[in-house]
Parts: sequence; C-alpha cells; structure tokens
Amino acid sequence: MLRIGILTSGGDCQALNAAMRGVVKGLATNVDNLEVYGFFNGYRGLIYGDYRLLTSRDFSGILTRGGTILGSSRQPFKLMREPDENGVNKVESMKSNYYKLSLDCLVILGGNGTQKTANLLREEGLNIIHLPKTIDNDIYGTDVTFGFYSAIDVACDAIDRIHTTAASHNRVFIVEVMGHKVGWLTLYAGTASGADIILLPEIPYSEKKIIEAIDKRHKEGKGFTIIAVAEGAISKEDAALSKKELKKKREKESHPSAAYRIAKLVEEKTGTEARVTVPGHTQRGGSPCPYDRALCTRLGSAAAKAIMDQKFGNMVAMVNGETKLVPLEKVAGKLKTVDPECQMIKEAKRVGISFGN
Amino acid sequence: MLRIGILTSGGDCQALNAAMRGVVKGLATNVDNLEVYGFFNGYRGLIYGDYRLLTSRDFSGILTRGGTILGSSRQPFKLMREPDENGVNKVESMKSNYYKLSLDCLVILGGNGTQKTANLLREEGLNIIHLPKTIDNDIYGTDVTFGFYSAIDVACDAIDRIHTTAASHNRVFIVEVMGHKVGWLTLYAGTASGADIILLPEIPYSEKKIIEAIDKRHKEGKGFTIIAVAEGAISKEDAALSKKELKKKREKESHPSAAYRIAKLVEEKTGTEARVTVPGHTQRGGSPCPYDRALCTRLGSAAAKAIMDQKFGNMVAMVNGETKLVPLEKVAGKLKTVDPECQMIKEAKRVGISFGN
Amino acid sequence: MLRIGILTSGGDCQALNAAMRGVVKGLATNVDNLEVYGFFNGYRGLIYGDYRLLTSRDFSGILTRGGTILGSSRQPFKLMREPDENGVNKVESMKSNYYKLSLDCLVILGGNGTQKTANLLREEGLNIIHLPKTIDNDIYGTDVTFGFYSAIDVACDAIDRIHTTAASHNRVFIVEVMGHKVGWLTLYAGTASGADIILLPEIPYSEKKIIEAIDKRHKEGKGFTIIAVAEGAISKEDAALSKKELKKKREKESHPSAAYRIAKLVEEKTGTEARVTVPGHTQRGGSPCPYDRALCTRLGSAAAKAIMDQKFGNMVAMVNGETKLVPLEKVAGKLKTVDPECQMIKEAKRVGISFGN
Amino acid sequence: MLRIGILTSGGDCQALNAAMRGVVKGLATNVDNLEVYGFFNGYRGLIYGDYRLLTSRDFSGILTRGGTILGSSRQPFKLMREPDENGVNKVESMKSNYYKLSLDCLVILGGNGTQKTANLLREEGLNIIHLPKTIDNDIYGTDVTFGFYSAIDVACDAIDRIHTTAASHNRVFIVEVMGHKVGWLTLYAGTASGADIILLPEIPYSEKKIIEAIDKRHKEGKGFTIIAVAEGAISKEDAALSKKELKKKREKESHPSAAYRIAKLVEEKTGTEARVTVPGHTQRGGSPCPYDRALCTRLGSAAAKAIMDQKFGNMVAMVNGETKLVPLEKVAGKLKTVDPECQMIKEAKRVGISFGN
Repeated sequence: MLRIGILTSGGDCQALNAAMRGVVKGLATNVDNLEVYGFFNGYRGLIYGDYRLLTSRDFSGILTRGGTILGSSRQPFKLMREPDENGVNKVESMKSNYYKLSLDCLVILGGNGTQKTANLLREEGLNIIHLPKTIDNDIYGTDVTFGFYSAIDVACDAIDRIHTTAASHNRVFIVEVMGHKVGWLTLYAGTASGADIILLPEIPYSEKKIIEAIDKRHKEGKGFTIIAVAEGAISKEDAALSKKELKKKREKESHPSAAYRIAKLVEEKTGTEARVTVPGHTQRGGSPCPYDRALCTRLGSAAAKAIMDQKFGNMVAMVNGETKLVPLEKVAGKLKTVDPECQMIKEAKRVGISFGN
Repeated sequence: MLRIGILTSGGDCQALNAAMRGVVKGLATNVDNLEVYGFFNGYRGLIYGDYRLLTSRDFSGILTRGGTILGSSRQPFKLMREPDENGVNKVESMKSNYYKLSLDCLVILGGNGTQKTANLLREEGLNIIHLPKTIDNDIYGTDVTFGFYSAIDVACDAIDRIHTTAASHNRVFIVEVMGHKVGWLTLYAGTASGADIILLPEIPYSEKKIIEAIDKRHKEGKGFTIIAVAEGAISKEDAALSKKELKKKREKESHPSAAYRIAKLVEEKTGTEARVTVPGHTQRGGSPCPYDRALCTRLGSAAAKAIMDQKFGNMVAMVNGETKLVPLEKVAGKLKTVDPECQMIKEAKRVGISFGN
Repeated sequence: MLRIGILTSGGDCQALNAAMRGVVKGLATNVDNLEVYGFFNGYRGLIYGDYRLLTSRDFSGILTRGGTILGSSRQPFKLMREPDENGVNKVESMKSNYYKLSLDCLVILGGNGTQKTANLLREEGLNIIHLPKTIDNDIYGTDVTFGFYSAIDVACDAIDRIHTTAASHNRVFIVEVMGHKVGWLTLYAGTASGADIILLPEIPYSEKKIIEAIDKRHKEGKGFTIIAVAEGAISKEDAALSKKELKKKREKESHPSAAYRIAKLVEEKTGTEARVTVPGHTQRGGSPCPYDRALCTRLGSAAAKAIMDQKFGNMVAMVNGETKLVPLEKVAGKLKTVDPECQMIKEAKRVGISFGN
Repeated sequence: MLRIGILTSGGDCQALNAAMRGVVKGLATNVDNLEVYGFFNGYRGLIYGDYRLLTSRDFSGILTRGGTILGSSRQPFKLMREPDENGVNKVESMKSNYYKLSLDCLVILGGNGTQKTANLLREEGLNIIHLPKTIDNDIYGTDVTFGFYSAIDVACDAIDRIHTTAASHNRVFIVEVMGHKVGWLTLYAGTASGADIILLPEIPYSEKKIIEAIDKRHKEGKGFTIIAVAEGAISKEDAALSKKELKKKREKESHPSAAYRIAKLVEEKTGTEARVTVPGHTQRGGSPCPYDRALCTRLGSAAAKAIMDQKFGNMVAMVNGETKLVPLEKVAGKLKTVDPECQMIKEAKRVGISFGN
C-alpha cells in the first residue's frame, strides 16, 4: 500500500505529462495497492484541497501530450508564508491536506520557485521528491531539465524559418527567445540555428559591438544578419543602472522588450530594415521532443525508485548521463547561469558568433 | 533556342524555388538550347541589369528549400512610372534589359502588387507569364496561391503549441496571423487549429461579442480561449473612422497591433490573463509543405507549356483542380477577399467558432 | 431532441477524430438534447451492440489526435449478407440496434468498402450520412478524401529524407507508398518530393523504360535515382497474366512486394546498389495535417447541417472547394482511379518524371 | 597559412555538413590563408586523388542540410592494406595525395570502421583529426556521436505514428530500428516513444517472454502492443548457434530480417495480426535535429582548435558536457555496446518495458 500526491507548478513546459507517467508507471509496475492523488493547478490544489484520485488510465497515452493534465499555476515562493486574501495559512493548509490523505510522499514537478517551496515543505516535515522542470535549464544540481530540449527545437525552428526569408530580403532579423535571467535556451537555439549574434542576460552587450558585427558581415558580402536575443538581454549601459533607474527608463520606452530595443538600434545605426519575431509561449507548448521523453521516463522511473526506497527530500537529477538523487537543501534557491567564460561560449566565438561584448 | 528571364518579387514566401524549378525543368526537358536569365532581387534586377545566366545545376535540389535563390524586393506598383532617385525611368529600363537579352519571355513570380507591374509590362509589349505567389491567397482568378498552405502549417503549429499551454493555465491566448487586408490565412489556420474566436479584416468585430464568447466558454467550464487574429482585424468602431482619424487614434495607442489591442480589451473586461504570440515572418519561411511543392511543380510545368505554346500575357492559375491560363488584364488589380457570407464561414460558425460579429 | 449513432470503419487514417468532432460540435451547438452513441470498432460495434453514450467532453481536444477514439475494424462488404460464425444475421442485427436506440441518423466514416455497406443500410431503410475517409483518395464523387493530404506529408517526408542519403551515396532508392489499386498517394507524394520515377497501379510499367530512365540520369551526371512505387504497381508482363497465373508467380518470388521487385530489377540490370524503404502504416498514423483538419471541420459541419435538414442517404463531399451532398446510391461501389492521360500526369512528365511507360 | 584536407566516410548520417561547417568556420575565423581540400566519396577520393579546393561559400547555408556535400562511400578497413583491382596500393596512394597537397592535417568524419582507417593513417605518420559520426552511438570514448539524436527523432516519429493506428485496430506492430550490432538507437527511440517491448542485439530474447509480455497487456485490457526491434536483435536459440549454422538457418527463412521473424512468431503464437514497419534509411536522412547541430558546431570548433594547437592523432569527443581530445590509438577498434545491466535498462524495466529476457 502506497499513497502519493503529485502536482505540477510554475510556467508551463513540455514533458510534464511524460514525467508524471514515468513516476506512476514506475510505481504501478512494482507496488500493490498504489493510490495517486493529483492536485490541480499546482500548489493551489494542495492549499485548497482540490484533487482527484487518479487511475492508471489517466496516465495512458500522455507521453507525447504537451501541457499538464493537472493544470498549473504560479505561486510565488515569497508569499508562501503570507496568509491568502481570506486569511488562510497556506503552509499549514498544505500540510493538513497532505496528512488528511495520509500521503507517503508528495511528488512535485517544477522549476526554481517551485523547488524553493518544495524545500520549505520538506523542512516542514513532508516527504518530498522533486523533478526539475523548466525550459530555462537553470536548475542547479542537474545537467539538464526537462522542457529545455523541446524548447530549443521550437526556438530553433523559428530561427530556421527566418533564415530563408532573411537571406531573400537582406534584412536584419531579431528573434526573441525566452529567458529573463538565464541564457541557456538562447545560447543553444542560437548556436544550433546558426545565429550570427547571440545576446544573453549573463553577457551585457555593447551597442557598438553589435553594429560592428553587422557591418563585418556586410563587408563579407552577407546582406542579412540573424540575432538571437534572450528576453533578459541587457546593454552594458542599462546593466550599470540601479533597479529604480532602469525601471524609469523602461517606462519611457515605447517597446519595453529586448528584441524591439535591438531592432530600433539596428535601424537607426545601420539603415537596414530590422524585423522582430516573438515565438513567445509556443516555446513552452506542443509535444515534447524524443530527448525529453526519454529523459522524463528515466527521471520518473528514478523518482519511483526513490519513493520505494524512502529516499525523500531529494531532486531527481541527470548528472553525466546517470540519474541521481540530489538533496533539496543543497540546491534550493540556487540558479545555474551561463558562465561567460565557459567552453561552449568560447567554441561559439571561435566559429565567428558574436556575443556583442 | 529559347531565352527566358525569371524573377521573384514582393514579400518572401515558401515554394518560390519549387515553382522556378518547375518552370525550368519543364522547359529544359523539352527545349534544346534553353537559356535562363535570373534577375536578382525582383524588378530591381530587371531595372538595373543585375542578372546571371543560370544552369540546370542552379535549380537542382531546391524543391524543398525556402526563400528564393534570386532574392526579392518590394517595388511599389504606384512608383513604377516614377523615375528613381537618379532619374532612371524604371519601365524603359526594364524593357531595355528585356530586349538587350533578346528574351522570348519573362516569367514573374509574385503577389498582387507584382502582378500589376507584370500586367504593365505586358501592356508595354513584353511577353509575360505570371505565377501567383503569396501566403495571403488573395489573388483573383486562381483558387489557391503557392505559399498559402505552407503558411497555414506554420500558423497552425503555433496555435497548436499555444493550445496545450493555454489549457494548463486557464488563460486567453491571442495569436496574430499575417494578413493586413485579407483573412484567408487566419480563417484556415484558425479553423484547422480549433481556435475559439477568429477575427478577420473582412468582418469588423464587436468588442462586446468577443467578451460574450469568452464568457460563454467560462460558463461551459472551459477556462481558456484561443483567439486567432489577423494583422488587419478591426473593430466596428475603428472601421467607421476615416483613414485620418484612424491613423491619429493608432498613434496614441502604445501597441498599434491588432493582437495587443485584443489582449488589452480581454484583460480589462474579463480580468483573465491574456498572452500574445506573434509568429511573424516565420509564416513566410522554411521548407514549403508537400501541397505547395506539388502545386508549384504543376504550375511551373503549365507555365513551361504556355511559354512553348507562346501563350503570353497570362497568369498560370489552379482552378477546380486543373491548371489554367488566365489573362493578366482580367485579374490584375483585383483582390480576392473573404466573403463574410461564404460557405466556410457558415460552417465554422455552425461548429461554434465566433467571428466577433 | 436528436439521437445519432456514429462509427468509424475500415483501415485507420488521420483526421477521423477531427471529422467526428466536426459533426458533434456542429450538432451540439445547434440542437438541444443531443444524444450521441458511439459504436466501437466499426460495424462490429453496431452488429454486436457494443456502444457508449458519448458526451461533448469525449470530443474535446481530439482535433489533432490521430487514430479514432471509437476504434475500427475491417468488415468486408461481400460478407455482410452472410451470417457470422455463430449464425448471427449481421444486417438484421445492425438494424435492430439502430431501432433499439431510436436513432435519427447513423453517421458512418469510412472508405470504399465502408461506403458500400453504408449504402446497403440506406437501402434497408436507415438514415445514413457518410463521410469520405481514406488515405487513398479513391472515393468517387468527392475531389478529396480526408487522410489523403496527411498521408502525403508522411510519404513525402520519407522520400525527402531518402533524398539526402541517396545523393551522398549514389544509389537507387525505392520507396513503397501505400495504394494497392489506386496511385493518387504515390502520384502526389512522388511529385511533391521530386521523385525521378513514379510507378502507379494504373500505369503498368516496362522494365526496360525504368532502366532507361536510370541510365539517362547517370549520363546527365546524376548518380542517384529515387523511385516512388505504389504497393500495387505492376509490370506490363504481370498485368497481362490471369489472376491465377499471377498468384502462382508471386508465390515463387522471395519478396512479393512491388518495391523489392523493382530493387531486384535495378540491381541486376544496372549494377547500382538499390535500397528499399517501406514507411508502411506510418502513412496512416499521427496527427492530421492542417489541411485535413480544416477539411474535416467543414465536412463535419456540413454533415451536421444535413442531419438537421434530414437530408439522409448522402455522402458529404468536397467539390470545387465547396461541401456538397452526394447521394450514396450514385457513388457506392465506384472507384476513382488515376487517368493515365490526366493533366497532372502530363505535367509531371513534362518536368522529366518517368512513369515507366 | 594552413592547408587541411577533409572527407566523410561510411554510412550516411545527419549533421555531417554541420560538423564540416564547424571545423571550417572555426579555422576561417582565426587563420589567414586557409586552404581546404575536400576529398569526394570518402577514402576513395583520397586514394584516387578526387578532390576540390573549397571556399567558405561551399560551407555557407549547409548547417541544416542532410547528407554530405562531399559524398561518402564504404571502404572496409580490412581491405585497406590490400591492393585494389588495378593493383593500386591504397595506403601509399592516400599518403602520396596527402603529401602532394602539402596538407597540415586531414580531418576525417566517420564511424567505427572509418576510425580504424584514420588510426592507420595516423600510424603511417599523417596528422589526423577524427570526428565521431554515426547514428549508432557506438563509438568508444565519447558520450555521444552526431547523427544519433537525429536518428532517434526519425525512429521515434515512426513509432509515434504507428501508436495511433495500433490503438485503433488492436494489433501488434513491429518497428525495425537500425542497429546491427548495438542497440542504443532502439533503446532510446523505444523508450522515448513508449514501446512496450524493446529487443536489442545485446540482450538475446526468449520467444516465450515476448509472448508473455503481449498476453500480459491483453489481460490488462490493452489490445495492442508496440515492439521496437533492432535490426540485429536475436533469439537466445539463434545466439547459441555457430556463425555457419546461423547463416544456413537464415537462408531458409523467407524473411531474413528481425522484424519479420518477430511478426511471424507473434501471429503464430497469439493469433493477433502483426504488422511490420521498416523506416530504413530515412533514419539517416533529412535535416539534423537542433541537438546535433549544436553538438557539431561545438565538435567542429574544438577540432579547429586542435588543428591550430597541432594536437593531432585525436578524436574530438563529447564527455560529460565538454568537448575533449581522445587519442585515436586508445579508442580505434573498440565498440561501445549497451550493457544489459546499465542504469537506463533498469529504469526502462521499472516502468514496465519488456526486453524479452
């Protein structure tokens, strides 16, 4: 007899269903009398007791389906200790629902914020297993998160399509890739799709260097330039401002988005037409790629093992090609960002990609 | 012995290469001593004598390649009779280059604007064959234009991806589909992807009706709504304004784009979070879909026959499943728009799709 | 109050779910107290009373899903009048189940064989609406069947992938495309993917002509050749045999499949390595393409209208871009084959494609 | 001044062009007076002096293109020391052409066999850099080879499509995945696509266990079963035979291919219809997936660095997320096979996948 709860929290992402299927298949194949309670819309379902007893039928055929059959919501970590608008103590409410159902373990799928709350619940005494979900790949302690490679495929497809049209029209094209704080997705999608300039939050750019890179291509007879820019890319000037100053500056700009800022810069300084594409939430949607599906089957299966072995309080990570349990207390609250001096950046620069610095 | 010139003009589009391959293969297989002159960057190449003698090798392997090997540019029809900034008479210059190369025919691939100039050159005495290219499907006299179905695939893929994430988060998602004046692309992509609301330039929308459609879904227990909106979708109020008044109004708006206007409306009136996706020029790029490739092979082959039969002054159209020659003088300058009372609109309404009217 | 039954019969195909969704949405939006009974596994469910009352929830989210939520089976028309192994009279049993549920109409999705049984049930007095499903596009009375364009996409993707590897290795590649009696799928997929030789059931091939076409390419410096061959392609010699003689001959062959026969021929006569690819049932599976989804939404919506208008005994067809009701008695039992002299064949030949004749 | 030669050898594979582009871009960006000689059709071009001086234009736009712009051929390692049919000493001829062009380094892209010859040329004194190409992922000393993840995508797509049709018809479907000696591709594609049974060359299967696994699914109410079988999968009985005995046995079988053997077994023992799909060479063709393109840009860039640093005699590997030089003498001739006791196999078994053992 085993009773587990499961929830998906935070921004949407491919392969959430695949990961849940892995966990439940891993348990159902090996445990008699398994009960799985699915909480709806992330921590919200756990707080307000919105759940359903799921059957194996619920997990059948969902390996390739995008989204999450449980729904999701964003519940900021910093408000978790605050009462809600009706005075409900969220943490106590979550604990209460956990114990009411006599859960042996709560499986939580989510990104950095989700992980912090998962760790908080662990500190409060609940048995927690966390699976690292995010298209941003910014979770500390795992080589890769699920959703990352699926999102690369989408962003890369957008840049690929833009490539043909850019070449036909001799324009500068700017594709805005998701990532406010970290640039993994932009770095990989940009490298994979042959972007000429890649702008990351971790490497503040010089406007002059961007123009120089475009000019250099013109001189080499290449009429078009593709720029992959992360949502959180920032100029050196802006990076030097205080938070308050930056906020003021942004409010004055007609297009408070990185891609449009670059487009304006390019048109003003080079006279070349610049066009912006914003794949937006398509990067979080659709079927997970095969990589993510194999990854999630492995992570889910390893999570099932951890639960059966009662090794709680861990994130199931992928490290050097092997699944591994990593204590939540060691990783919660940490962010894995792109090191501007890392090997991959050097390799990309060597083949001529400019990072605007 | 046959000498033809070929050029691609106007906005980029899939299957331009496939269509050119069709024409050249159709001629090369049947004509001895074929010479094909490719003019670069649309009419610009014809005006300024920028061309190259192409070999069959140039057309090998391009069936699936997006963009155009000849490059393109937009040359507004209304400026064609005007001299350029150096005083060059464009029409005379095009004629002069045509005769200098002793061309038997000039093959022109392009949309509505391109077609008008093609007809002008026909009136000036040149032998012209036109192929109907545009993702907008708005060319009069043909059932379908090439690029249209490829663009549907791209727009549809975007909406499909959004679907999963919309369902997980109970949001309203607005996807902006290309089309300033005509809504074919939005109509087909929206219908094919199961959009709940479709907004077209041809059917001015009532803001109230949009909100009602969203509310109706909420009442049916559906937390999310997908809106496919054409770039040129317009409210009844705005449609009633004069051009000048509308321009003034747009200048005051922070987001002068249809999708952002709808998003603002939804957030203000329903309180539901609304997110915008702009696939943009991805809708023009990448490999043509198989439909367009078969279509272009047929159109190209029929163009080759028209040239060999010396039936000039025609567009090669697809009508009721058969290729057909349609006199340019009968179609140039006409636009094929969506009739709000057409069968497909009625069928879409019958399955519950709202057109906001 | 309206009660309808629905079933999907025959070989699997994309967009069956999309078509059913169209019918049910079309009715549910316009009819109060709609009851939809889904019969499982084709006519088998109707014969043996295996059905379930479906809700609109069953049809939600299935627009893009391959396969059929009702299951399918093949029930040969010629055995319909025969009792089954337990002596059950199939036709009477189907009528009995129809009347027991007081159905107003039975909606049947299927191909040629299915259509014949649908017509038989019409003759027996049932109210029937038929939707034309098949990847073969061989249903008489409609320009296109659903599944056809999705299957083209799959077959075309296979040939596209083969193209790159064929070019790298200077081999002859033979891709076997589905179609025992008709060649529409092979014709379109082959044309769209730039196959060099296309072999159809309707055009018996000369082995000599195939070898000549390969040799011609070699002489032109093209080391590889792609052959798209329909399952039912046949040599002139074999086409001249009686059914009995042909059966005997096939039994002696080690690979009784068209593609392998061509491969053997090529290797023996040209010395070039030949490789066979059999996409097989992948051509029937996966998500329907946007074309088919828009088509099925239209056909389904038109079927709903026909039911509400009580215009029974019809197939819902697509003719010249408009949906249309076609009496079953006029089309049942007829097959739409490729006319060897049709415009598209001529166009394909003009661009250099050989049909081996 | 730097002169390099480059060649692609062995079975075709995605991302060969991407890898070459990486090497040449990495060098061209950093070296003045670079000369790149491309040898055609693998070692054959090096042996017979069939090459061309390439320009950076040749490497432009090939990042996403399948196949190899240089062509390839299989040149068995064991025949390398043998004279050819005209008495030409192959090794001496390769050395002679290398020195004639005063090459500083020869870059060789290929799999295991290619690597052995690369190592032989290294032993003969040539400066060699090897890049690990194969869809089989069986090269010792690197975590991953390029082509592997692209091939997974293709095989996985085939199984995904089969899934919908299998579910509709209650059949057993057998998909034959490439891999004669190693099962990595089948293991990953099977896991990623939710195959129920996976058969690998490294784990001889028991026919009884396969039937038991199918029966178990039937008892659980699942009417269909998907089997992913590697080309080289073998039964325990056959694995116990001598090479000679096995060859004899195969010759008697009508379908000497793993998938057809399994199909026959299933039909005979379960009475369920079994269908075979053979994606074949499609697994080697088409555009590389984004993963492979980023990988190849990195490997190519690292190869360029190795050449500039004069670190010859190495394979450029990817180990734990970093590129790394691995001496050819340490890895040539070794094969990386699937360990039946490895973590991933255990994880797959835990979620209910049967390996037939």
